Amino acid sequence: MTTVLSQTARPTVGSAMLHPRSVAIIGASDDITKTTARPLAFLRKAGFNGRVYPVNPRRETVLGERAWPSIASLPETPDHVFVVADTRFVVDAVAECGARGVPVVTILSGGFAEAGEEGAVRQAELLKVAREHGVRLIGPNSIGVVNPGAGLMLTANAAFAEEAIPVGRTFVASQSGSVIGALMTRAKAVGIGFAGLVSTGSEIDLTLGEICAATVDDPEVDAYCLFLESLDNAASLAAFAELAHERGKPVTVYKLGRSDAAAELSVSHTGALAGEDSEASAFFEACGFVRVENFESLIEAGAVQRRLMGTIRDADAPRVGVITSTGGGAALAVDELEMRGIALTRPSAETFARINEAGIAVSESLIIDLTLAGTRHDKVLNVLGILEDSEEFDLLVFVIGSSARLNPELAASAIEEFADRRLPVVAWALPDALETLQRLHRAGVPAFRTVESCAEAVAATLRSRAPRGEALAGVKTPAAGGTRVLDEQQSAEVLKQVGARFPQSLVLGPGEPVPADLAYPVVVKVLSDAIAHKSDVGGVEVGIRDADGLEQARRRILDSVARHRPDVLADTVLVQEMVVDPVQEMLVGYRVSDTVGPLVVLAAGGVTVELYGDSAVQMAPVDRDTAAGMIERVKATALSRGYRSAPTGDLDALADLVVAVSRLAIERPDVVEAEINPVAVLRDTEGIIALDALVTVLADQGEDSTTTTDES
Amino acid sequence: MTTVLSQTARPTVGSAMLHPRSVAIIGASDDITKTTARPLAFLRKAGFNGRVYPVNPRRETVLGERAWPSIASLPETPDHVFVVADTRFVVDAVAECGARGVPVVTILSGGFAEAGEEGAVRQAELLKVAREHGVRLIGPNSIGVVNPGAGLMLTANAAFAEEAIPVGRTFVASQSGSVIGALMTRAKAVGIGFAGLVSTGSEIDLTLGEICAATVDDPEVDAYCLFLESLDNAASLAAFAELAHERGKPVTVYKLGRSDAAAELSVSHTGALAGEDSEASAFFEACGFVRVENFESLIEAGAVQRRLMGTIRDADAPRVGVITSTGGGAALAVDELEMRGIALTRPSAETFARINEAGIAVSESLIIDLTLAGTRHDKVLNVLGILEDSEEFDLLVFVIGSSARLNPELAASAIEEFADRRLPVVAWALPDALETLQRLHRAGVPAFRTVESCAEAVAATLRSRAPRGEALAGVKTPAAGGTRVLDEQQSAEVLKQVGARFPQSLVLGPGEPVPADLAYPVVVKVLSDAIAHKSDVGGVEVGIRDADGLEQARRRILDSVARHRPDVLADTVLVQEMVVDPVQEMLVGYRVSDTVGPLVVLAAGGVTVELYGDSAVQMAPVDRDTAAGMIERVKATALSRGYRSAPTGDLDALADLVVAVSRLAIERPDVVEAEINPVAVLRDTEGIIALDALVTVLADQGEDSTTTTDES
Repeated sequence: MTTVLSQTARPTVGSAMLHPRSVAIIGASDDITKTTARPLAFLRKAGFNGRVYPVNPRRETVLGERAWPSIASLPETPDHVFVVADTRFVVDAVAECGARGVPVVTILSGGFAEAGEEGAVRQAELLKVAREHGVRLIGPNSIGVVNPGAGLMLTANAAFAEEAIPVGRTFVASQSGSVIGALMTRAKAVGIGFAGLVSTGSEIDLTLGEICAATVDDPEVDAYCLFLESLDNAASLAAFAELAHERGKPVTVYKLGRSDAAAELSVSHTGALAGEDSEASAFFEACGFVRVENFESLIEAGAVQRRLMGTIRDADAPRVGVITSTGGGAALAVDELEMRGIALTRPSAETFARINEAGIAVSESLIIDLTLAGTRHDKVLNVLGILEDSEEFDLLVFVIGSSARLNPELAASAIEEFADRRLPVVAWALPDALETLQRLHRAGVPAFRTVESCAEAVAATLRSRAPRGEALAGVKTPAAGGTRVLDEQQSAEVLKQVGARFPQSLVLGPGEPVPADLAYPVVVKVLSDAIAHKSDVGGVEVGIRDADGLEQARRRILDSVARHRPDVLADTVLVQEMVVDPVQEMLVGYRVSDTVGPLVVLAAGGVTVELYGDSAVQMAPVDRDTAAGMIERVKATALSRGYRSAPTGDLDALADLVVAVSRLAIERPDVVEAEINPVAVLRDTEGIIALDALVTVLADQGEDSTTTTDES
Repeated sequence: MTTVLSQTARPTVGSAMLHPRSVAIIGASDDITKTTARPLAFLRKAGFNGRVYPVNPRRETVLGERAWPSIASLPETPDHVFVVADTRFVVDAVAECGARGVPVVTILSGGFAEAGEEGAVRQAELLKVAREHGVRLIGPNSIGVVNPGAGLMLTANAAFAEEAIPVGRTFVASQSGSVIGALMTRAKAVGIGFAGLVSTGSEIDLTLGEICAATVDDPEVDAYCLFLESLDNAASLAAFAELAHERGKPVTVYKLGRSDAAAELSVSHTGALAGEDSEASAFFEACGFVRVENFESLIEAGAVQRRLMGTIRDADAPRVGVITSTGGGAALAVDELEMRGIALTRPSAETFARINEAGIAVSESLIIDLTLAGTRHDKVLNVLGILEDSEEFDLLVFVIGSSARLNPELAASAIEEFADRRLPVVAWALPDALETLQRLHRAGVPAFRTVESCAEAVAATLRSRAPRGEALAGVKTPAAGGTRVLDEQQSAEVLKQVGARFPQSLVLGPGEPVPADLAYPVVVKVLSDAIAHKSDVGGVEVGIRDADGLEQARRRILDSVARHRPDVLADTVLVQEMVVDPVQEMLVGYRVSDTVGPLVVLAAGGVTVELYGDSAVQMAPVDRDTAAGMIERVKATALSRGYRSAPTGDLDALADLVVAVSRLAIERPDVVEAEINPVAVLRDTEGIIALDALVTVLADQGEDSTTTTDES
C-alpha cells in the first residue's frame, strides 16, 4: 500500500480515507448554524488541498459554492464521500457512490441498528448495497474523518472549527465521536498533533481494527491512539496489533467500561456492548498495546513508547533513575513510579563522585537532585552525559522545577539537546509549563503535563511486551450452538489429553464391588453431570481408610444425593486417591469469551478469589514465561514460596498446568469452558494434582472428540 | 484574632505573617542573579502595599534602595522579617529581631538539624534565642511566605517572579518549598488564586498546624490546601482541624510517602520522617480532611467541599447524577465516579418525562444526555431547574463537550447562572478549555481540568466526615521509656478491663493438679511472656477431651518448649475452654503510633491480611458507627454476612469489641500495643470470643495498673 497515487489508480482504503484527492459531501447544508454545514466550512477554513464537491439536489449553491445534484453529476469520481444527509437517503446515497466507483464512504447519519427494528432493516440494506458495489463504509454514526496535515476536515465535530490544528505522526481511532475533538484540543495544548483522527461509529463495515490496519504503511503515521468503548471486532484489532508491531508503530489504548455502569452506558449511547474489563486487559496485553487509565496519558504515552523502542537492555528489570531540579517535585514522581511497580535504580557512589568531580555539588540519594547545584544548561547536559556514560540506567525521568515555566533555556533546553542521545530521558514539569512541554515535544522528548500520566505511561510502557501471535490467532467469536456439561470423570479425561495430572481413580457403577487392591486413604464423590456442587448435596466424603468405610461412604453419599436431588438418578461414585496436606490449593480455569476468545485463568482457591479477586487472566494459549508471569501476579502463590518457613510448593508444575490448560484453545476447540478447582500444589518438585474438574463443551461435538484443529 | 490592626497593637502571628504593615529582609543581596535578591525584587514587582526595609550591613544600597545596617537601625519595628542571610548569621539576626520586638521571623537559610551535629547545636541556640524574646519562627529551610492580595512576596521561590499572580480565598501550607510555586502556577492556569502560600520548612518553632491555625479567623481565608511530606507535629494539625471545622473552612490534603521510596526520599531532602501511609489516612479521616492523590485535585477539590457544605441530605447515600452535552465524555466521568465508589442515581421516568415535555428530547438512561437536544443556554438552564425541582439529586456532575472550548455562552454560561441555586453542580470539560474553567471558577462553580481529579474530589468530599474530637484529643507522641510484653493471661486481664470477652480459662502452675469440674474440650497453651509465637515451639494443643489428655498435653507442651527454648523457664500452662467452629476469625489490634498516637486496627485473620492487606485503621478511640464502618471496609467480613448460605456471624459484637479495644487510648494510657488474634466471630447473636492476646505496656507502669486518665 502507498499514499503516492497516480491520478488514475483506484486509491486504497487508507489513501482514500486520509489522503483523498477529491471529496464529496452528500447533504451539505447552506445553513451555517446546521451541523451538516460544518464539513464544507471546516474544509475551506483548513484549506483542504484537494477538490470538494457539495452535493445537494435541492439547492444551486451551498455556502456560496456550486452545489451538485448528485454523485453521478460530478466531473470526477471522488475518493472519499461524507454522507450527512437524513437517514432515509443514506442507502440510496451509498448506492450512488457505489455505481460511480467511490472507494470509501463515511456516514454521519444515525438511525440504524441502534434505533430498533426498522433501523436494523435499514442497516442490512445499507450493508448489502455497499457489498454489491465494493464500497467500504466508515460508520454510520461516525462524526467523521480528519487529516490535519492535508486540511481534510471531513467531520461534523464542532471542535474542528479550531484554528491551527497541529499536525503530528500519531493516528487516532475512536469509538466515541466527541473524543476525537477532545484529544485534538488537549494534545494541541501540550504541542502534540495527529496524522489523522477517525470516529469509527457503529463499525458495520470497516471496523476500528481495519481502519487502523489501512494506515500501517502510511509514512505519515508512526503511532496509534485508540479510544474504545467495546471489544466487538476484537479479531480485526488483533490482526492490526501484529501489523503495527511488525512496522514498529506503537499503540496506546484507553478503554471505557472499567465500571459496570459505564459499560451499560456505552450500550445506551452507541449500541456497543462493553466486554468484561479483565478480559480487555488480557487482550490488550496479548496485542502488545499499552493500556492507560488516565485520559491524558492516551495523548502522551506514545512518545515514551517511541523513545524506548529497542533501547531497554533488559525489559524484565528496567533501570529507571530520577533526576531533578526540585527535590519536592521529584518526590511526587518517585511516589507515583514506585506505586506503579517501578523500583527506582539508585546511582552508584562512583557516579555521584564523578558528578561532584565535575564541580556539580550533588549529595548521594535515591535520586540526582540538582536543586542546590542549579540548573545551568551546561551543568545539566554534563550530568546527563555522566549518567549516560555510567551505563547504570535504561531511562531517566527528569522532574523540572520552576525553571520549566520561567527559564526554559536552563534545564529544559539541555534536555532538548540530549533528546537524540543513547540514554532516553522523559520529562515532567512541576509547575504549569505548557510552552516548555511544547518545546520538549517538538524536540522529540516525551514530556508530561501531570505526574500521574508521566508515571503511568512509563510504567505501562516498561511492562508492555510484543504481541503473542499464537494467542491472537484464536481471537474469534466462539462457535454457535448449545453446550453440554461433562461429569467429573469425563472432564478429567479432556484435561488429561492436554497434560493435566489427576489422582488415581476408578468409577464404581451400581452394585460394582470395591476392588481388593485399592490404596487408601481415598475420597469418594457422587459422579453425575447433573450435579455441579457435590458437597452441597452430601456428595463427597474424604479420608476413607478401608473397603468397609468405602462401602458405607458410597451408601451414605447415594442416599444423601437421592434425598437432596430426587430429580437426578445418581447411582455411580468416583473413588479417588486422597492427596494429603498440599502446600496450597489453587484454581486453573479456561473459557472462550464472546468478545476476545480463549482465556486462561489462574486464581487463589476457595473464597479468596471471590473476596479479593486474586487472579490473573491471559489470552490462551500461553507460553511458559506468560504462565510464570501469571503466577507472579496471583498474590496467594506467596504461600508456595516458603511463606513463614512453611514448605515450598511446586510452582513450576503449576506453570506447566496453566500452559497445558491454555492449550485447549488449540487442541480442543469444542471446549467452551473448563475449570480445575482445586488444584493441589505439592511440595518442592512433587508436582501438582487436579482434585476436581468441570468441563463444558459444544453440544454438537462429543467429549470424546479427538479432533485437533491447529488454529495458528 | 483579627486582621484589622491599630497602628500600635503588636500584631498576631497570623496578621504579621500574611498582613504585615512593614517587612525587613536580612541579607538582601544587590546581585539580581542571586536567590537572596529575589524577595525585594518580587515585593517591588508585586507592589507590596506595606513598607520594606532591606537589611545589609555591607552595602549602602541594594537594588537601588537604601540598605539598612541592622534591625535596630530601622525607623519602626517590622511586623515580619525574612532572614535570607548565611546560616552563620541567623541566630544573631533572630536575636536582633527579638530585641526589637519583631513578632514573626521567616528563615530561608538551611544548615540546621538536617545538616548534622553542628547544625543541631545551631538549631538549639536558634530556638533558645527565639523563646527568650518571644519571636515566632517560620522555618528554617522555608522558601518563604506569600500573600498575593497584599503583594507580599516574602519568598525566594523563583515562581513568584510571575506577573499577575491571582488572588483567591484558599490558604496553602506546604512542607515542600517548590510546591507552593507549582500550585500557584497550576491554579492560575485554571483561574484559581490563593489567599496565602507558606513554605513551612523545618517547623522547629511554628508547625504547619500552628501556621494554619493562625489564619482560621482571617476573613480573607475560607479554605485550606495542605501539602505534606511527614506527620511530625500531628497534634497541632489535629488542633487546627477542629478549629477549621468550627469555622466551616474545608481542608484538602495531599501527602507524599505513599510509597516507601518517597518516604525515604523525604527524609533525605527535608529531614522529615514520613509516617506509615495507612496511619496518615486514618489521621486525615479523623481530622475531617479530604485527602487527594491526584496532585491537581489539591487545587480543585476545595471548591467542591465549599459548595457541598450543608447541602447533602444524607451523607451516607448521596445522590449523584450526571448530565452532559457529550455522551462519550460523560461515559468517562461515570467510569471514574463508579470506580471510586459513587453509585450514580438514575433520574426517574417522571423526570425524563418532564424534560421531554419541556420540548427537550432526552432518552431515558443512567444519565441526562443533551447531545441531540443541543446545549442552548435556556435549554440547559431549563433542564437543571427540572432536575432541582425533582429533589432526586444531591449533586450533579455536568460533563461539557466541545462547546466548553468554542461556545462558553451555551452550556457553560447556563451552569454559571445556576451556580447559586439549591442543587450543587460541578463541571468537567472534555476538551481543553482553560478559559471556561476560569469563568466557572469566577462564578463559584467547582470545575475540573481532568476527569480523574473531578471524580476523586467528588468521591473524597462525599466520603469525608466531621473531625472526631475524642480521637484527635489523643494525638501526641507516646510517653517515652522502655516497654514490657505481658503474657497471655495478663494481656487478657488488660483487655477484659475494657470489655473484651475471653474463654473460661485457668492457669496450671508447676505440679498443680487438674481440677475435676473442668468442661471439655479444652485448649492447652504454654504461658510465658518470653514466648510470643507459642505454636512455633509446640506450645499449643487443641481438642483435649478429658483430664488424662490434659495431663499428657501439658507434659508434651512443656517438654517441647524446653527443647525449643532452653533459655526460657516455662513451667506453667493456660487451659482454655475450646471454641468450636466459629463463623470466622479476625484480628483486632491497637497501637500508639509515634506520629499520630493511638490507632485501632481490624483485619482479616491468618495470612489473608498479610497477602491482601485486608484491614481498616482508625484513630482511637472510635464510636460504634466508625467501628461499623471499619467492618464494612474489611472485605473478609463478608464471610459473616451469610456468605454462600453459610451461617451469619455476630458482627455487632465485633463492632463492640473494636470500640472496646479502641478505648484503651483513654482507659489505659500505659498500653502501647495490643493485639487480639484470633477473635472468633460466633453465630448470629452469640457474640465474639478473644482466643489469644498480646499486650505491651510501658515498663514504668504495671499491667495491673488501674489508673484511668481521661485525656479528652
